[in-house]
Amino acid sequence: MSEKVELLIENCSQALFTGTRDEGHDVSEGVTIAVADGRIVGIGNSDELAGRFKGLTEVDGTGRLLTPGFVDSHTHLVFAGDRSAEFARRCAGASYEEISAAGGGIRASVRATRAASEDELFHLAAQRAVRMLSLGTTTVEVKSGYGLDLDTELRMLRVARRLDEELPLHVLPTFMGAHEFPDEYREDRDGYVDLVCETMIPAVAQEKLALFCDVFCEESVFSPEQSKRVLECGKQAGLKPKIHADELAASGGSTVAAEVGAVSADHLMKTTEENIRALKESNVVPTLLPGTTFFLGKEQYAPARALLNAGCPVAIATDRNPGSCTIESMQFIVGLSCLRMGMTPIEAFRGATENAALALGLSDACGRLAVGLAADLILWECPDPARIVYEFENIIPRTVFVGGRAVFGMQLDRRNR
Amino acid sequence: MSEKVELLIENCSQALFTGTRDEGHDVSEGVTIAVADGRIVGIGNSDELAGRFKGLTEVDGTGRLLTPGFVDSHTHLVFAGDRSAEFARRCAGASYEEISAAGGGIRASVRATRAASEDELFHLAAQRAVRMLSLGTTTVEVKSGYGLDLDTELRMLRVARRLDEELPLHVLPTFMGAHEFPDEYREDRDGYVDLVCETMIPAVAQEKLALFCDVFCEESVFSPEQSKRVLECGKQAGLKPKIHADELAASGGSTVAAEVGAVSADHLMKTTEENIRALKESNVVPTLLPGTTFFLGKEQYAPARALLNAGCPVAIATDRNPGSCTIESMQFIVGLSCLRMGMTPIEAFRGATENAALALGLSDACGRLAVGLAADLILWECPDPARIVYEFENIIPRTVFVGGRAVFGMQLDRRNR
Repeated sequence: MSEKVELLIENCSQALFTGTRDEGHDVSEGVTIAVADGRIVGIGNSDELAGRFKGLTEVDGTGRLLTPGFVDSHTHLVFAGDRSAEFARRCAGASYEEISAAGGGIRASVRATRAASEDELFHLAAQRAVRMLSLGTTTVEVKSGYGLDLDTELRMLRVARRLDEELPLHVLPTFMGAHEFPDEYREDRDGYVDLVCETMIPAVAQEKLALFCDVFCEESVFSPEQSKRVLECGKQAGLKPKIHADELAASGGSTVAAEVGAVSADHLMKTTEENIRALKESNVVPTLLPGTTFFLGKEQYAPARALLNAGCPVAIATDRNPGSCTIESMQFIVGLSCLRMGMTPIEAFRGATENAALALGLSDACGRLAVGLAADLILWECPDPARIVYEFENIIPRTVFVGGRAVFGMQLDRRNR
Repeated sequence: MSEKVELLIENCSQALFTGTRDEGHDVSEGVTIAVADGRIVGIGNSDELAGRFKGLTEVDGTGRLLTPGFVDSHTHLVFAGDRSAEFARRCAGASYEEISAAGGGIRASVRATRAASEDELFHLAAQRAVRMLSLGTTTVEVKSGYGLDLDTELRMLRVARRLDEELPLHVLPTFMGAHEFPDEYREDRDGYVDLVCETMIPAVAQEKLALFCDVFCEESVFSPEQSKRVLECGKQAGLKPKIHADELAASGGSTVAAEVGAVSADHLMKTTEENIRALKESNVVPTLLPGTTFFLGKEQYAPARALLNAGCPVAIATDRNPGSCTIESMQFIVGLSCLRMGMTPIEAFRGATENAALALGLSDACGRLAVGLAADLILWECPDPARIVYEFENIIPRTVFVGGRAVFGMQLDRRNR
């Protein structure tokens, strides 16, 4: 007698990352998946599972690839303002410094975000999040950091919480008051760090508005000492540490990451072999952001192969933000990771699912196709991952499921024919 | 009394390239357009045109940008086979030579295309063309060149003709038997050039299967002498010359282009200042293909600024093909042209519309928004071109019109509310 489930997708030509991390497989053929109560209750070989389940919705996976939904573990999705004219100037050769001196850059986003209401910020961010969801992102991390004052930072985090409540995808909030120094603290950087640690973090923790605390550790931004102070303070308040590290120089961020036991260290374009060893030993997930390198017109991508060769669980993410990367498609990031960082299609897909979930502490929730994990899935109209990478700049039709519910794409129930 | 028209789009926030090339404008605000019998019958300031027309379909252009449909003047859209595994190998570091020696590369596409029926080729190409149309490409050029024998070259061109007949977008066919030397002529290159000139071109001309003749002029492919012979032969048969020039080296292609009066010279990554002057003086349209540079992971983009500064009408195209560029989106090419070739948003949009039409001899048919030209339009859910360039990797919703008929996007008729 078949077990009744909500969703049954049978005979998928290929599936990626089935089973748990330890016992599972990267690529399986002829796979059936069964979903009930939003979770995977069966996953395995179609012949072995034939007849085991009966689905309320039944989909034929023939010719289709099944993957976990994308997990985008690094975005600055909440912001107001329009920096498109600035982008055109940058393409024409204006430097970041020139633009910043003229009032552009992050400060432009801060001005616009401070001036926007929660509703305005929510609607703008929701448009971006919905586009990401349509492209297969079922879990997204969202950072604050364009407020740089208590009121706006909390407002941004409340927007992130509303996105999680009102949209189908999962939204994880990160407090990043330590993104930049606001104008009013330009002459008193230590005073701003005090504000972040002594006022903002306690308020964020009290309202339970964030899971993580992040900091931009870089020459001329937050020093390693300041970064460590912010992250330790966050840890004390229950916020897991993340860090922007070694983006413009090997500036100490990965060392801080290792010292504080950060969940992830992100960017790493300029990280060194020594740093890579430290990250590996401390189980910090290196998260690479090739979209930013591409969008800034730069050539030096992060050393993915060195990190992979050292045995690190490399994650990849969009870094979607108003200044250095407007890319929303994890599919594009997957392709770019192969094209410019020498990752294989499987390594890139893993970076966008399983390892990204690891970078968010969500390994028990999503990122693989295993019994007990969330049924956040993408069913691709295409039989294999190499094809998706090969045409990564094209529209690959897909159906996106969150908790087993089809939220985007064609209604593929066999009985709809 | 208002003139009755089929389509009326009023109050567009901005419109690009209105009026003729000589009298027209790059950017206009508050624009109304009227369409009848597939052509533009009115275009101009909304206040001045208020009440002049009454449309069967009426669309509110408020907050929306109106542009000509994209013209993609360089594609190799017709082919069979799957080179996705080869792409993964290339990303992993295999050289083009290694892949070619193992039977991959163009020869793999030739084998698969020769083995495919006209129906199979048609259906594969139609999928690509429909995706392009959904992204705003209303006119596309399609080259033969994966047959390299009479029968298959003619088959590819018949497929191009069928695409034009059966799909809404305009398809212009180019004969490119001189794309590469087939295996069977590896030891007898001159023999193959004889075949192209004495057998293929006459057959193509007799069946009226192509408008243009193209050749890949490059070291180790077709020499300048061979290229000139092929193009002169094509001209005699009524096929306008085009040429792949200076892609891997300054190998003589632009000189040939100037000598034969080619309509366009395409690629030009390695072209020189002297070549640029020659192209300018001969009115050859330089067509740049940044998608190919990007997809091959290369860094040296074509010298767009030098060409623009010399006064050349620079066109841009996708070069969509199975080996060196799977990109189908002209929006992406526009963005990439700004990001990596220093073109402004207006220069890039012009390269993708007006100048691309010039590269196909279609200036009297499309590429601008002028009375008498085809009503091939894109109405963007976005008010200005800088925004599209800034988010060029994202989905910008649009409605695409061919001959005034909405072929893709939302049905925006005001009366549908």
